[in-house]
Amino acid sequence: MTEHVRIALDAMGGDHGPSVVVPGAAIALSRKPDTSFLFVGDEAKIAPFLDADPKLKAVSEILHTDIAVRMDDKPSVALRKGRWKSSMWLALDAVKTERAHAAVSAGNTGALMAMSRFCLRMMADVQRPAIAAMWPTLRGESIVLDVGATIGADARQLVDFAVMGSAMARILFDIDRPTVGLLNVGVEEIKGVEQVKEAARILREEAFPALDFRGFVEGDDLGKGTVDVVVTEGFAGNIALKTAEGTARQLAEYLRAAMSRTWMSKLGYVFARGAFDTLREKMDPRKVNGGVFLGLDGVVIKSHGGADAEGFASAVEVAYEMARYDLVEKIRQGMAHERPGVAAAVATPEEMARLAGATP
Amino acid sequence: MTEHVRIALDAMGGDHGPSVVVPGAAIALSRKPDTSFLFVGDEAKIAPFLDADPKLKAVSEILHTDIAVRMDDKPSVALRKGRWKSSMWLALDAVKTERAHAAVSAGNTGALMAMSRFCLRMMADVQRPAIAAMWPTLRGESIVLDVGATIGADARQLVDFAVMGSAMARILFDIDRPTVGLLNVGVEEIKGVEQVKEAARILREEAFPALDFRGFVEGDDLGKGTVDVVVTEGFAGNIALKTAEGTARQLAEYLRAAMSRTWMSKLGYVFARGAFDTLREKMDPRKVNGGVFLGLDGVVIKSHGGADAEGFASAVEVAYEMARYDLVEKIRQGMAHERPGVAAAVATPEEMARLAGATP
Repeated sequence: MTEHVRIALDAMGGDHGPSVVVPGAAIALSRKPDTSFLFVGDEAKIAPFLDADPKLKAVSEILHTDIAVRMDDKPSVALRKGRWKSSMWLALDAVKTERAHAAVSAGNTGALMAMSRFCLRMMADVQRPAIAAMWPTLRGESIVLDVGATIGADARQLVDFAVMGSAMARILFDIDRPTVGLLNVGVEEIKGVEQVKEAARILREEAFPALDFRGFVEGDDLGKGTVDVVVTEGFAGNIALKTAEGTARQLAEYLRAAMSRTWMSKLGYVFARGAFDTLREKMDPRKVNGGVFLGLDGVVIKSHGGADAEGFASAVEVAYEMARYDLVEKIRQGMAHERPGVAAAVATPEEMARLAGATP
Repeated sequence: MTEHVRIALDAMGGDHGPSVVVPGAAIALSRKPDTSFLFVGDEAKIAPFLDADPKLKAVSEILHTDIAVRMDDKPSVALRKGRWKSSMWLALDAVKTERAHAAVSAGNTGALMAMSRFCLRMMADVQRPAIAAMWPTLRGESIVLDVGATIGADARQLVDFAVMGSAMARILFDIDRPTVGLLNVGVEEIKGVEQVKEAARILREEAFPALDFRGFVEGDDLGKGTVDVVVTEGFAGNIALKTAEGTARQLAEYLRAAMSRTWMSKLGYVFARGAFDTLREKMDPRKVNGGVFLGLDGVVIKSHGGADAEGFASAVEVAYEMARYDLVEKIRQGMAHERPGVAAAVATPEEMARLAGATP
């Protein structure tokens, strides 16, 4: 467990840059006082916000750069223009060089993933990255991955996602063996795609000590919170995520229209305002901001580009949890179980002995 | 255009059988008086419901069979037990033998699709079937396909789906050139799966007269109603559909809990009851019941197994529209444009002349 967490922040990322990133860090600090920050970006733009908050400034440092990746830069362009020198790159580099435990950026997802893979590299033995989203459910929250990094993941990659998502769930939900489901379709004539069936077979037959495999789940299990971790490939996962967001906005719009239609309903709204505040809180996407990049040799969190300070703070807090409770190490342990031969090759003598069953 | 529509109903399908199917038909008849029905199933169970409704009985006939496909029968079992003789099969057979213009069943989807393909066969030149769902949106309704029949459709099959969905949209929305979008992921590093990109290229380059291709859409465009027809392969489509249903139920649950939490909010509910009724109407899945099987040489509509009479009536009305305005013929015309050579081979001399540009 990391005692003090230092987080590198891409201060220029997102739609609002330092005006959201700095206040967001301040909110996160108020909840996690054992945190310090490295703000990466245009010092002239960051400093005024820091000067306005002495408490935050006391635990913060600025790393200046003029260069910022734009929200609409393609990953290839971002890499060409921003490698070695952009605020996004330098925040990741701080993780690589161990000057920070985690990086957070609200910059564009494609660029952040491309730079993360280039700068931090994949973990040994993980083929493909995944982006994990926090999903609000009727039971609390679930983790859903992949929501867009790996289109058409094969069976072994889906199993890797299950292991990585479970490691994340153990940290966030503080449970030993998170329940895991594979997203599949329930139309009866369809047996499910081959790779999903094969992944299920592997998860069932190889007993994974750190997860509790529950078989297939369907789209409507996401909102129910049937399992702690829902695993799918990136195409279906991204579509599910965006469909749920769109449906929530659609229903909020129906509700707004219905409540403002007549004087009676407006009056009803006045009486029920507390209830609507609760509802808004439940539906607040800011509360669950923070996509976790999994499979990289370092902790990287993506905040929504349009997040406000409260939303960005959520992403920072996810970074804090992932760094403090050693996400990467937990994933490594899970992968070691999955592929003991490979893990032994990079393990310490003690670990090798344990893997070989020589010590309890 | 078909002047009078005769619909074959699998009276034993669904969770409730004749107790929902017969009253559902009665509701549909009240809205579409130029309809008659062939009820297929156990006469002893159907007749009492018909006897109670002389107006419906006057336009109805019963085709008796003892055999019904069960909701949990696998497609292979359903085919083995129910081919030639079950209520589901005989309803489809009535379409095949032109004793009915369309068949509606609330029986299990897998069995219905398997039997439909076996009994009615695919249309010439359509490789794979699709199930099209009606999707409520902020702009009204869209058609989304495929929601589960064809997992991993290739580019040409996706183009077929676009043509078939457009034919359906022309009938349901009464527009000449429905707008069509291909469901894709928006994460920037991902260019989209190959078959989706290839389908987009075909739809862009070959000018389809009966549809207006608008490029890619994302999951959140579904609820917005950005296009009239959203095309995707069956795995992602099924997951999107179920995710949206689950999210709607989840938010309804949040709302219910919020409104019953305090006396003030309960009072607010009383004042706003009209608004909530409007909202419930908007969210009512019964209003959009009726999955249309596309690609078959006949009109087959799947009703939700759990639908009540109102919901079943919606499915019957969809069947009415599809039969009355010649869905299969409209699809054939669209496919003829797509593959003029093949169409000409089965076209009449007049049609061949028109295809060759000899007549306007």
